[in-house]
Amino acid sequence: MQHYLSLQDIDSLSQWVEEAKSLKAAPLQHKSLGAGKTICLLFFNNSLRTRLSTQKAAMNLGMEVIVMNFGSEGWALEYGDGTIMDQGTSEHIKEAAKVVAQYCDVVGIRAFASLTNKEQDEAEVVLNNFKKYAGIPVINMESSVGHPLQALADAITLSENNSKKKPKVVLSWAPHPKALPHAVANSFVEMMHLQDADFVITHPKGYDLNPEITKNTKIEYDQDKALEDADFVYVKNWSNYQDYGKVLNQDKNWTMTAKKLGKAKFMHCLPVRRNVVVTDEVLDGEQSLVIEQAKNRTYAAQIVLKKVLASLED
Amino acid sequence: MQHYLSLQDIDSLSQWVEEAKSLKAAPLQHKSLGAGKTICLLFFNNSLRTRLSTQKAAMNLGMEVIVMNFGSEGWALEYGDGTIMDQGTSEHIKEAAKVVAQYCDVVGIRAFASLTNKEQDEAEVVLNNFKKYAGIPVINMESSVGHPLQALADAITLSENNSKKKPKVVLSWAPHPKALPHAVANSFVEMMHLQDADFVITHPKGYDLNPEITKNTKIEYDQDKALEDADFVYVKNWSNYQDYGKVLNQDKNWTMTAKKLGKAKFMHCLPVRRNVVVTDEVLDGEQSLVIEQAKNRTYAAQIVLKKVLASLED
Amino acid sequence: MQHYLSLQDIDSLSQWVEEAKSLKAAPLQHKSLGAGKTICLLFFNNSLRTRLSTQKAAMNLGMEVIVMNFGSEGWALEYGDGTIMDQGTSEHIKEAAKVVAQYCDVVGIRAFASLTNKEQDEAEVVLNNFKKYAGIPVINMESSVGHPLQALADAITLSENNSKKKPKVVLSWAPHPKALPHAVANSFVEMMHLQDADFVITHPKGYDLNPEITKNTKIEYDQDKALEDADFVYVKNWSNYQDYGKVLNQDKNWTMTAKKLGKAKFMHCLPVRRNVVVTDEVLDGEQSLVIEQAKNRTYAAQIVLKKVLASLED
Repeated sequence: MQHYLSLQDIDSLSQWVEEAKSLKAAPLQHKSLGAGKTICLLFFNNSLRTRLSTQKAAMNLGMEVIVMNFGSEGWALEYGDGTIMDQGTSEHIKEAAKVVAQYCDVVGIRAFASLTNKEQDEAEVVLNNFKKYAGIPVINMESSVGHPLQALADAITLSENNSKKKPKVVLSWAPHPKALPHAVANSFVEMMHLQDADFVITHPKGYDLNPEITKNTKIEYDQDKALEDADFVYVKNWSNYQDYGKVLNQDKNWTMTAKKLGKAKFMHCLPVRRNVVVTDEVLDGEQSLVIEQAKNRTYAAQIVLKKVLASLED
Repeated sequence: MQHYLSLQDIDSLSQWVEEAKSLKAAPLQHKSLGAGKTICLLFFNNSLRTRLSTQKAAMNLGMEVIVMNFGSEGWALEYGDGTIMDQGTSEHIKEAAKVVAQYCDVVGIRAFASLTNKEQDEAEVVLNNFKKYAGIPVINMESSVGHPLQALADAITLSENNSKKKPKVVLSWAPHPKALPHAVANSFVEMMHLQDADFVITHPKGYDLNPEITKNTKIEYDQDKALEDADFVYVKNWSNYQDYGKVLNQDKNWTMTAKKLGKAKFMHCLPVRRNVVVTDEVLDGEQSLVIEQAKNRTYAAQIVLKKVLASLED
Repeated sequence: MQHYLSLQDIDSLSQWVEEAKSLKAAPLQHKSLGAGKTICLLFFNNSLRTRLSTQKAAMNLGMEVIVMNFGSEGWALEYGDGTIMDQGTSEHIKEAAKVVAQYCDVVGIRAFASLTNKEQDEAEVVLNNFKKYAGIPVINMESSVGHPLQALADAITLSENNSKKKPKVVLSWAPHPKALPHAVANSFVEMMHLQDADFVITHPKGYDLNPEITKNTKIEYDQDKALEDADFVYVKNWSNYQDYGKVLNQDKNWTMTAKKLGKAKFMHCLPVRRNVVVTDEVLDGEQSLVIEQAKNRTYAAQIVLKKVLASLED
């Protein structure tokens, strides 16, 4: 059974990217693959791109789609083992996961980091309990730790726009007024590890991502130096990881500008705060790939669902 | 025209159960029956199982499904006759029911008991006004007084797991921190009246259900005695009925345990509060039927919809 | 590319009405037209009729439908040019509109007037920015200024119920406890300008609609006089336009009664507050066309979608 919980569930990134590009060229070519199959998309958090693109991808494959805002439409879930449930939670994840699996063949789950409890966030309790108890393929629609559908769309976008054997790709931190999760940055890093590139991460000192994810990636604290001769610049805010979930820096010197970008292509997962994360000039310019990235979310989801559906037939 | 408002809308329970089991064996066998037909599922309250299983059932029959959270997405409804609507309500049920019927062929409605006004709850104003004004089949997705889709799923589950001519079935009250409706218990009782069983209800003194529903069912206030030699134990909390909607008892001695259960099968409609209503040991054990009950919600809804669709062709 | 933002997007009202009536007679006759096409319905406000009828219309044409409550399920949108987005808004309409267009072929949008800022409301920022940036057909599901799907349904209803060459049609203001937008009244006026009728608007002094919309329509402040020999009376509240969004008058003498109505047919877009806007007697009487109007919402949406889909093939 094929899950898609993280980049580690991809056996060959280059092959998945090629297949996704083939799906993009003819999205309905496997319309009968999902016939009679249902996917439940469970949202514990807000969503625009993921909500629409995953529905679209499933419909392109002929699946039935059920969308549910689990937080507001369902019951408050309990995750603890052995809890005496006489407080605010009404249903245990054990039952919820098994029950959902009675009504669908595949389940997609969005459950953001709390950013208040690192240990709990990193345990990925929602996702991992669904994986443990549901008994059906689980797709990560952004979890505490990762956003692998976004990273796969980014890989497709890089592939479509890259002409070099070993492009220089920079992940550049940006300021933001609110505490944001590390999921997108984490998955982008993990994705970059699956391909040949000169990959650099730049951020203010003290804003290091989880070293178990970045591993031996080159970190350059001088943004200008990091951006030199870049081919692609992926800009993203994340809150502090060491002082978990805190906003310790809003330095506007890190905002991406046309001057800093140089000749590189600009990437961002969206939503993006204009003139805080990146200037209007960059977003409205020809080097911006953000809309293409959004478009490729459909084909990232579609190749994942195609692999998942194929695994159900084994 | 076939409605499904209560157990009384079933002409032959044993036959419906058999047909449901046939649908379970081949869920898509009537995929063309609902072609061109639309069902609107209107939720005035939260839902997990009902939301997903009823959608799934309708899709299995080839129907188009529109789901709406009436409370949050629509307008506040007025139920009073002759009301001068210059206060908080924006639309009268008369218009709402007739209007919904312009866009669908069948309507499913979930509208829980208030638990504050017994008379109003028992009048089933939402359900009955839809029945009165919509002019299309109405399906009860849990009302103030009953949850007949759950009871039908329970009947299927009993049938699948019973090997005796006259099994002993016990409905056992359980403690709960919040005030819960009587709907599930009521419909279970009504369903048991439609089959041959040694049926006993056990609950603390003063927690009697509506005697118009329990009729001459055996009531045994001693839980241990009630559970003796039981084949099936259905556990469920309900708030007080006489002192309407109050939580007068949270006695943990009524929590179902493996020891109390003995060799009986355990049933519950879910969601369930672990270690309050029933211990982990029971829920995680092999005698628990709760996930099968949840699965059978699909086929309960599907046989109901099949009957409803057939009635539209008459 | 065919948008449907206002009545001005109709090239021939009488022809569209005739085609809508043909669709009503056989709703599934163009079931294959929308195959492989997706519509996103984005709601920034509550909805019953528009939500259900537009879904139904799209399904009748074989389209895939994705419904999203943008306000609660997505991100807070920014509309300002050049804004430094370090406050409450998370995503700029420029990105949101372009992104949505990656996942669908047509987008429907509901975004009510604020009633606090006339200039901003009349700029129709949500609708116009979607039109400007999305690059796909945009359908107005009620905007600040207009509700052209309602007006088209009203035109169908008038056509079905009119036997005169030049009927007398009266738009009559009614009292209401809350501040309501001008959208429905505006579009009704614009629609009436597209057909041959003796059209009169009646309302208390000081309650004039935008004169750029009413143009040279006859205004009669004496309701009784306006209603004389009327064939159709369309009743609707709107808040003050000059003293923008204020409720300056709740005079119950303007409530529509059976006596005032005389032999005319009664119309209202719904939801309607009984015994405030209009008496029970009128709504429950045979001269009321409100349910037919609601029914025709489906065929109004369907003819619009048919035109839009046809324009995509050009």
